[in-house]
Amino acid sequence: MATTEFDTSLPSIRQVQNLIKQTATVELKLLTGDLLTGRVLWQDPQCMCIVDENSQQITIWKQAIAYIKPKS
Amino acid sequence: MATTEFDTSLPSIRQVQNLIKQTATVELKLLTGDLLTGRVLWQDPQCMCIVDENSQQITIWKQAIAYIKPKS
Amino acid sequence: MATTEFDTSLPSIRQVQNLIKQTATVELKLLTGDLLTGRVLWQDPQCMCIVDENSQQITIWKQAIAYIKPKS
Amino acid sequence: MATTEFDTSLPSIRQVQNLIKQTATVELKLLTGDLLTGRVLWQDPQCMCIVDENSQQITIWKQAIAYIKPKS
Amino acid sequence: MATTEFDTSLPSIRQVQNLIKQTATVELKLLTGDLLTGRVLWQDPQCMCIVDENSQQITIWKQAIAYIKPKS
Amino acid sequence: MATTEFDTSLPSIRQVQNLIKQTATVELKLLTGDLLTGRVLWQDPQCMCIVDENSQQITIWKQAIAYIKPKS
Repeated sequence: MATTEFDTSLPSIRQVQNLIKQTATVELKLLTGDLLTGRVLWQDPQCMCIVDENSQQITIWKQAIAYIKPKS
Repeated sequence: MATTEFDTSLPSIRQVQNLIKQTATVELKLLTGDLLTGRVLWQDPQCMCIVDENSQQITIWKQAIAYIKPKS
Repeated sequence: MATTEFDTSLPSIRQVQNLIKQTATVELKLLTGDLLTGRVLWQDPQCMCIVDENSQQITIWKQAIAYIKPKS
Repeated sequence: MATTEFDTSLPSIRQVQNLIKQTATVELKLLTGDLLTGRVLWQDPQCMCIVDENSQQITIWKQAIAYIKPKS
Repeated sequence: MATTEFDTSLPSIRQVQNLIKQTATVELKLLTGDLLTGRVLWQDPQCMCIVDENSQQITIWKQAIAYIKPKS
Repeated sequence: MATTEFDTSLPSIRQVQNLIKQTATVELKLLTGDLLTGRVLWQDPQCMCIVDENSQQITIWKQAIAYIKPKS
């Protein structure tokens, strides 16, 4: 788990940074099968933190993410 | 998660680049068991982004991909 | 499994350090689907150790973590 | 995901190269539980491409492979 | 799979070393969902070996471990 | 996937080498839940090859191994 690599020029990293700025509601599908919904608060090389509709913060390990999409 | 490695001379990287140029519809099987269908918009070392038939963009972590094939 | 990297300036590492100081009760969802509840005692680059309501210590491999959230 | 390492002196790499030359039909079990059948067309450090009985090409991420065996 | 890293100053590595010395009975939950019970005989960077109640040795790949806890 | 590391001084690597020399029948549990039975023919950093009771060779990616034990 290389925690110090974080290439902010990558499209996928920048896309998440944009989701943070836009305070967009997203759906995150995890490898557990869980589908989480919320706004992205921050990301670092290891994790992504979202806040759900109950104002609860959930810190997700990136290793567990299958996909992310804007909530339709 | 090494995000800066991206060897564009690799057949598998080039194949995805070709799918992007051809705007081909593909099926992506994920480790969650999900089967996603869409056109590939871009890839970077960490993710692949597709747009589905509802024009929704889905950013998939490559770590979650089992296989990709042209939609038959 | 790179066991020596542990960048304490990362938000996700600091967040867990704060949970340790606050002795907050958290829920940890694992890739197995297990949901563990307890207080975080320590973390290192490889593992996180919690103590549950029965005072039992459980050492969790970080590779198995899907997400962590404060118990609501 | 280190995409540039590809040690062709390794038995497992050479074995797949031989399966390609022999155009042998193989079974590939994936971590999703899928069992794919086909001939191996090429491999690179990241992926293995097979063609199934319907002449459809499937590009499999090596991270998703559990085992490969000659079809009996 | 970096097999040569093994930082014995890490709490999680030392904890397992202590379990070995104490010949404590532990429960190991795997990513397969299996729950194995036994005493830890040895660990190396790649594996952990336990002996179960039938004196059978089981070598577990660390990549497959979700958590370890003393048997209650 | 670091394919060139293979530290033959490690107990877990040596143990598999011994199983090969002894032509011992082993059980291999995979992350898919499959339980394979056979004799180990060879290993390299990426894979382990077994031959089952039907003389069929199965090449297993080490990333998919949960545990190995002598068949009781």
